[in-house]
Amino acid sequence: MSESDKNYNISDLGEFGLIEHLTKNIQLNRKSSIKGVGDDSAVLDFSGKQTLVTNDLLLEGIHFDLMYTPLKHLGYKAVVVNISDVLAMNGIPTQIIVSIGFSSRFGLNYIEELYEGIRLACEKYQVDIVGGDISSSLTGMTISVTAIGQAEPGKIVYRNTAQVNDIICTTGDLGGAYMGLQLLEREKEVFKSKPGVQPDLQGYDYILERQLKPEARADTIRFFEEKEFKPSAMIDISDGLASDLLHLCHQSDLGCKIFQDKIPIDKNTQKMCEEFDIESTTAALNGGDDHELLFTISTGDYEKIKDEEEIQPIGHMTSPDFGCYMISTSEHEIKLQAQGWRSKEE
Amino acid sequence: MSESDKNYNISDLGEFGLIEHLTKNIQLNRKSSIKGVGDDSAVLDFSGKQTLVTNDLLLEGIHFDLMYTPLKHLGYKAVVVNISDVLAMNGIPTQIIVSIGFSSRFGLNYIEELYEGIRLACEKYQVDIVGGDISSSLTGMTISVTAIGQAEPGKIVYRNTAQVNDIICTTGDLGGAYMGLQLLEREKEVFKSKPGVQPDLQGYDYILERQLKPEARADTIRFFEEKEFKPSAMIDISDGLASDLLHLCHQSDLGCKIFQDKIPIDKNTQKMCEEFDIESTTAALNGGDDHELLFTISTGDYEKIKDEEEIQPIGHMTSPDFGCYMISTSEHEIKLQAQGWRSKEE
Repeated sequence: MSESDKNYNISDLGEFGLIEHLTKNIQLNRKSSIKGVGDDSAVLDFSGKQTLVTNDLLLEGIHFDLMYTPLKHLGYKAVVVNISDVLAMNGIPTQIIVSIGFSSRFGLNYIEELYEGIRLACEKYQVDIVGGDISSSLTGMTISVTAIGQAEPGKIVYRNTAQVNDIICTTGDLGGAYMGLQLLEREKEVFKSKPGVQPDLQGYDYILERQLKPEARADTIRFFEEKEFKPSAMIDISDGLASDLLHLCHQSDLGCKIFQDKIPIDKNTQKMCEEFDIESTTAALNGGDDHELLFTISTGDYEKIKDEEEIQPIGHMTSPDFGCYMISTSEHEIKLQAQGWRSKEE
Repeated sequence: MSESDKNYNISDLGEFGLIEHLTKNIQLNRKSSIKGVGDDSAVLDFSGKQTLVTNDLLLEGIHFDLMYTPLKHLGYKAVVVNISDVLAMNGIPTQIIVSIGFSSRFGLNYIEELYEGIRLACEKYQVDIVGGDISSSLTGMTISVTAIGQAEPGKIVYRNTAQVNDIICTTGDLGGAYMGLQLLEREKEVFKSKPGVQPDLQGYDYILERQLKPEARADTIRFFEEKEFKPSAMIDISDGLASDLLHLCHQSDLGCKIFQDKIPIDKNTQKMCEEFDIESTTAALNGGDDHELLFTISTGDYEKIKDEEEIQPIGHMTSPDFGCYMISTSEHEIKLQAQGWRSKEE
């Protein structure tokens, strides 16, 4: 946009003007995007493929804190966390619809920044923006993202189809986003008590990026495709490893055994945990927002994934009678819980 | 649900428990609903048909006022206004995804009431609930509804395909929802100044229902199907006749001429307008929330719709040079504006 455009304010543009202003340069690249922004509904054509749809609502103060979240990052993250849900079905994210509610304290340039992040994520993941709405809000900022994707019917992977003895795997590493959040919260408190003090965020790029600008595991889904391989069950890790693994177990009506020393934790996360005196396994089990993929594979498929650096086997599925446990480095059986974990003896 | 269930409160249930509690009795009736609530995404199959997707965000204080909006009605309306956008494409609404943010001031029974309204609307319009999320909110209540529908590729009706001389039609009657809102706002002010006084809403059922529990025009879309007829362009009237007709004109790159005495206004709306000293045409042109359908048809198709009581021709499309005008009962040309209208001479 030109500099002169920047002088518009939102009330000059009006609601329709604002939507037009923000969406005018949006191009549709997906063959399945028949009609995007500008009508009552988007029109999509997935002929022969199944359609995946998911929605997330991000609320100020609950899902994000504008005190330390740059709007561009927020827009990026809002898209990424949604398309992660499509990827977790072994699908290809293809379109999104974004609705935003924001209060008049935000000028046009703020909304543009948010939209810039949205557009960046769409470009990176090759997703079309096909609809959306912008409302004023009397309260905080609200972002609703609907992600749409496609998959061949036989390729969709559900949560409830894991089998006994299947190997449990996770991508990337865990707990980083949670530790990034702890750091941001700490610096916020420092800032609140001493407003002049600049936040001390140097050297913490990795965990900050995990929290503020996460990526979705499109590379893993492409890897599955290349290897002509399909997990037996899969879920997006958004609420912490324990919580999401329990979903997978309950829905598959099975138990699980994972090993503490197999849980992948980055050295930067480890370092931050030491600083905060938090057990890094706790950060991985109970911290959220990692958006890695958790999936199970039959033992016969292990060969196909064993050399992939970004995939880590952490245990296996068991009969439901066993329950859901982590074997600690000291070889204790620790019962997994959606929040927190306690020993089997308790 | 049993009475004993009612004693649960939300913190006992937790987020996952709450979602399970609210969605456990949801049945999927649509053949296209492959997988509903309970995985990362919903899975839908529209083989051979195109997919329509739309999202609306409803924010407390902007789109609804909980002081006079019963939660059951709110849930119902949240669904209806969204599926109206699918109908406005000449599509069949098939599924919805509902995400809700609510503050802790609401107990479980409030959320159940809201959900009850959502379920009622889904039953009436034969729409499956295939996903959703519930978050706590630090501020007001937020409802995000994504409506999904299907249509055969050749049957979808866009906004930008009206032709010169096409007849402009509207369904039902206009301005009622706006007058219902005026009444509710008046009684709210009375209540705020004299808290003991009961609101005086007797005899105003029609306009109150138009505002609080609107219906979507599924009957009109069925009528088109029966008559093997397709409008040349169509839009949902949500922002007032003037605003939505202007969208249709601009997107079709045409002008229009409508006639004041043809605009359908119910006698209850008329009566309320007199009480408030508001011109009823103004309520129809600028009041929102009617969720009637505005569409154009070629003159050759007029025979097919002329006997349908619920459809009213109000004018015709013109070349773009003419502009967008209403001919008043006193035969003045009045320029249509998105908000308000002024005479051509000005």
